Amino acid sequence: MARMVVIYRTPENIEEFDRHYFEVHVPLAKKIPGLRNYEISDGPIVSPVGASNVHRIAILYFDDLAAIKAAFASPEGQAAGADRRVFAPDESGIQMFLFDNKEV
Amino acid sequence: MARMVVIYRTPENIEEFDRHYFEVHVPLAKKIPGLRNYEISDGPIVSPVGASNVHRIAILYFDDLAAIKAAFASPEGQAAGADRRVFAPDESGIQMFLFDNKEV
Repeated sequence: MARMVVIYRTPENIEEFDRHYFEVHVPLAKKIPGLRNYEISDGPIVSPVGASNVHRIAILYFDDLAAIKAAFASPEGQAAGADRRVFAPDESGIQMFLFDNKEV
Repeated sequence: MARMVVIYRTPENIEEFDRHYFEVHVPLAKKIPGLRNYEISDGPIVSPVGASNVHRIAILYFDDLAAIKAAFASPEGQAAGADRRVFAPDESGIQMFLFDNKEV
């Protein structure tokens, strides 16, 4: 199994961010081929090591890292990525991590 | 449901970090009451927005944010937290995020 973790820094306009996220981005992202599950944070994000400065975290489930790479190379993945760069540009402090994972 | 996401920056001594993580920290963390599932990254962590500089990511599953707070107030949670500060001090660039989440 593999995960994609997306960490969105708190935006200047939270209401606008959330409207775009739920009305545009989630529907686009849910079309990405190979996406098994899509979870998002719901409410405040607590950080025990300093202020979190994070508004929302998404965890996307895929079968493996190769599936994530194939997913984002697909037209649906490209569309979701292009939309993400509209509401959360690379320079907005967004963090994205893709990795295979396992239970311990 | 709720998640705790822990993001460990790449340490100076990866071998020593991993030995401590698997031999000491994972066994301690698995004793934390209320922990439902414990996943870790397995292999390289890719970041599409710049170098990741991240060595490992852990995702811990709990029923809700209140359960996470209770868990870390328990003796087992305190022990795991104290151990974490030994091998990944607050100033090491570690990020920890606790949040309720939902499927979309």
